Amino acid sequence: MAKPAPDLMERIVSLCKRRGFVFQSSDIYGGFSSCYDYGPLGVELKRNVKDAWWQSMVTGRDDIVGLDSAIIQHPEVWKSSGHLEGFHDMMVDCKECKGRFREDHLEDRNKCPNCGAEGMFTEARAFNLMFKTFAGPVESTASAVFLRPETAQGIFTNFLNVVNSSRVKPPFGIAQIGKSFRNEITPGNFVFRTREFEQMEMEYFIPPGEDDKWYEYWIQQRFDWYVGLGVRPEKLRKRAHADDELAHYSTGCTDVEYRFPWGFDELEGIAKRGCFDLTQHSKGAGKDLSFFDEATKERYIPHVVEPAAGCDRTAMTFLVDAYEEEVIPNEKTGKEDVRTVLRFHPKIAPITVAVFPLVKKEGMPDKAREIVAALQDVGLRTFYDEKGAIGRRYRRQDEVGTPWCVTVDGDTLADGTVTVRDRDSMTQERIAADEIVGSLKQRVADWKRG
Amino acid sequence: MAKPAPDLMERIVSLCKRRGFVFQSSDIYGGFSSCYDYGPLGVELKRNVKDAWWQSMVTGRDDIVGLDSAIIQHPEVWKSSGHLEGFHDMMVDCKECKGRFREDHLEDRNKCPNCGAEGMFTEARAFNLMFKTFAGPVESTASAVFLRPETAQGIFTNFLNVVNSSRVKPPFGIAQIGKSFRNEITPGNFVFRTREFEQMEMEYFIPPGEDDKWYEYWIQQRFDWYVGLGVRPEKLRKRAHADDELAHYSTGCTDVEYRFPWGFDELEGIAKRGCFDLTQHSKGAGKDLSFFDEATKERYIPHVVEPAAGCDRTAMTFLVDAYEEEVIPNEKTGKEDVRTVLRFHPKIAPITVAVFPLVKKEGMPDKAREIVAALQDVGLRTFYDEKGAIGRRYRRQDEVGTPWCVTVDGDTLADGTVTVRDRDSMTQERIAADEIVGSLKQRVADWKRG
Repeated sequence: MAKPAPDLMERIVSLCKRRGFVFQSSDIYGGFSSCYDYGPLGVELKRNVKDAWWQSMVTGRDDIVGLDSAIIQHPEVWKSSGHLEGFHDMMVDCKECKGRFREDHLEDRNKCPNCGAEGMFTEARAFNLMFKTFAGPVESTASAVFLRPETAQGIFTNFLNVVNSSRVKPPFGIAQIGKSFRNEITPGNFVFRTREFEQMEMEYFIPPGEDDKWYEYWIQQRFDWYVGLGVRPEKLRKRAHADDELAHYSTGCTDVEYRFPWGFDELEGIAKRGCFDLTQHSKGAGKDLSFFDEATKERYIPHVVEPAAGCDRTAMTFLVDAYEEEVIPNEKTGKEDVRTVLRFHPKIAPITVAVFPLVKKEGMPDKAREIVAALQDVGLRTFYDEKGAIGRRYRRQDEVGTPWCVTVDGDTLADGTVTVRDRDSMTQERIAADEIVGSLKQRVADWKRG
Repeated sequence: MAKPAPDLMERIVSLCKRRGFVFQSSDIYGGFSSCYDYGPLGVELKRNVKDAWWQSMVTGRDDIVGLDSAIIQHPEVWKSSGHLEGFHDMMVDCKECKGRFREDHLEDRNKCPNCGAEGMFTEARAFNLMFKTFAGPVESTASAVFLRPETAQGIFTNFLNVVNSSRVKPPFGIAQIGKSFRNEITPGNFVFRTREFEQMEMEYFIPPGEDDKWYEYWIQQRFDWYVGLGVRPEKLRKRAHADDELAHYSTGCTDVEYRFPWGFDELEGIAKRGCFDLTQHSKGAGKDLSFFDEATKERYIPHVVEPAAGCDRTAMTFLVDAYEEEVIPNEKTGKEDVRTVLRFHPKIAPITVAVFPLVKKEGMPDKAREIVAALQDVGLRTFYDEKGAIGRRYRRQDEVGTPWCVTVDGDTLADGTVTVRDRDSMTQERIAADEIVGSLKQRVADWKRG
C-alpha cells in the first residue's frame, strides 16, 4: 500500500468530482467558495447516512420520535436560545490593507498576516454567525429573520407540542435531520466545514439526576454507530471537553473524533445541557415547559443530553475511511497496478450490486435486466452497465465502492448460473441465478471489514 | 357520511396539531406566520412522500440520476436563470395607511382594501421574491447571495458535471428533492403555500424534436403516481395552461390539480422548457453545455421536460384526500358515533402496523414486543401501545391512518394466534402469530381503496 499523505485529500476530492460524489457548487461560474453539490453517487451516499441514522435513532426505537421544523423561525427563538447575543466570532480589521481576521486565529496579535503591517488592527468586534434575511414585503427590522444555526432549537420550541400530541414521557427523545447555516469566517477542508450544512441532532429529555447515566449511554451508542457502519475503530476516539471548553450551562461534553488526513477532528458532540434550553424558552415565551409525571406526581423541567452530528462530515468520514489505493499484480503485463477502492459498508455504499452482461448479445442484456428488477424488488440499490471490457467495469465499481458485481455470461444461458464478484477479495463465485437475491441479502447481512 | 364543507380544513388542521402531524412554527412564541413544523407523524408522512417519489423517479429507473445541490449558490446563477430580473410581484403602497398590496390581487385598482382611501396608491413597483442575505464577514453587495427560489437551477448548473461523471445520454433525467424559498406576499391555505417549502423536481434532457412525446409521457406518469398512492382519481385533473399563462420560452405546461376544499389547485406542473435554461447558463457562464452524441455524431443543446412537484402540498393532498368522518353504530349505546379515519395508502401511512397487548399482564406485553421487533426487521413502521381500552386504541390509530392493528390477547398465549384488525373494514381476523409478518407484507401489497 502506497499512500503518500500530503495529497491524499486532493486525490479523494478528485475522485469525488470524477465519479459524481461531490462537485464544487456553481462550478460553471468558477465555483462558489466552500459550497458543494452532491452528485448522483453522493446523494445516495448521503441518503444512506441519513437513513441509517434515522433507523438507529427513531424508527428502530420506541423512545424517540422524529420532527422536521422550519429553517426560518420566529426571531424571538434566537433571543431566548442565546444565539442573538452570544453566537459570534471576534473579528479585527487591518487599517492598512482592510483585511478582516478572526482574532483567535491570529498567530501574532500585533501583525497583519496579509500585509505585514504592525499595530494596525482595530479593536476586536463581535461578528454574529447567523445569516440574516427579511421575510415579508417590507425590509425593516420588524421583519428581520435568521436562518437557523442549528436544528436543536426547533426541537425545544416544539417540546410542548410533542408531549401533548404523542404518548411520550421522560426518558424520551426528539430527533431531527435538516439544513443549518452559519456564516463561518473560515470554512474549509472540503465538505467538513461549510456555511450551509446538514445536521442530525437528537435531544433526549430525562428526569433531573439521570444526566450522567444517559450521557455515558449516548457517548457509547454514538461511537458504536460509526463502528457498526464500518468505520475503523482505531481511527475513532472519544475526547471529553476540558472545563474551559464548555458552555456555561453545560456540565459535560464529549466529542467523537475521527483521524482525518489533517489530524483528529470532531464528528459529533454529545453534551449534557441540563435544563438550560427549556428554561430559557420558558422564560422567553412565558410558557410552562415543565413535565408532570402522573406516576410519581412530580413536576419538573426535564434535563437534556444531546448527540449532535453533522451529516456532511459523516458522509465525508465514510468516504475518507473507505478510500484505499492497493498495489496488485497485473497478470497480463507482469507488472503492478494501483487499484483504487472504496471499502464502504454495504449499507453505506451508493450502489449495492452492479449487474453486467458479459457482452451485448445472445440475450445476456435481457437476462441481466431481469436480475436488476429482482434485486430492486427487495430494495437493493442496483446499477446496470453493458459498456466496455469486463475488467474495466469491475474497476469502475471498485472505485465507487460497490460491494458486489453480478455478471451474466455464456454459462448463464446454458446452465442458469451467474458469477458474483466480491469488491474486497476480488474473487468470483458461480451461483445459480435464481439464488442471487437470497445470496446477496445474506452477503449484506454478513459483511465485515477484511 | 356527514362532511360539511365550510370548516373541513379547520378540522383537518386541528387533527394535524392534536395528533402531531403539523404544528404552527414557533408556537410557544405566538406562532410565526405561514411557517409550519412537522411533528412525529408528519415527519414520517413527509419521508414516505419523498421516498415514494425518489423510488419512482430515481432508484426504480435506469434513466434518471439524483442530485443534491446547495441552497446558496453563486449569484450569477440567478442572473442567467432570469430570476434576478424577472422573478417578482408588482406591489403598490397606500399613501394613506401605508398598507402594501399585490397589484394583481386588488379588486378595485383605485381603492385601498385596508383603509378605504381612494386614489392614494403609489405607482406599482417590482418586488423580487428571492430572499437575500450576505455570505462572508462583510455586508456589501459583493457578498449578497440569495436563497434559491427553486431546485431546478442547481440541476442545470450541474448538467456538465453529471454528463462527465455518469454514463448518461439523452433521454435522461436529473432529479432533486430540497428546500426552496420564496418571499410570497400572500402565503396561505395551511402548508399549501408557504415561504419556505420543499420541492421534488426532475429535469428530463432529451434530443430536440422529442419534446411532445416526453411531455405527454411525463404528464401521464405523474398523474398515475398520485393515483397509485391512493389519491381518488375523481379529485384529480390535468389542466393545460393557456398561451398567456406560459413563460415566453415555454411551448406547453400542464398542471396536475387536486380539488381541495377551496377548489382545484396546482399539485405539480409538467413543463416543456425547450433549450432555454441550458442556453442561458451557457451564455452566462461562457461554457459549452451542448451534448455530443457519439452514435449519431450530432452535437446539440438538449431540450428539457420538467415535472416539478411540491412535497408539502403533496403530503397535504394525501392528508386531505384520506380524511373521512364516518357515522357508525355504537353497539353499547345503541346510538351513532362519528369515526374520524385517515384512509392512507399503506406506503404513505406514518405507521403501518400498531401492536397492542390486550392487557398489561400475563406476558402479553413481551409477546407484543416480540412481534414489533419481527415487523421492524422487515422494514414495516410499527407503533407499540399498551395504554387504555382496546376500542379507544383502535380509534386512535384510525385517526392517524394506521392500516392494521395487531392485538395479543389470552388466546395468543394459549394457541399462538393474534387478531389483525383492518382500519377500513373494521373487521378482525385471527391468524397464527408466526404468520403475521408474511400476512402483513401481503396486505400492504394487496391494499386497494375500498
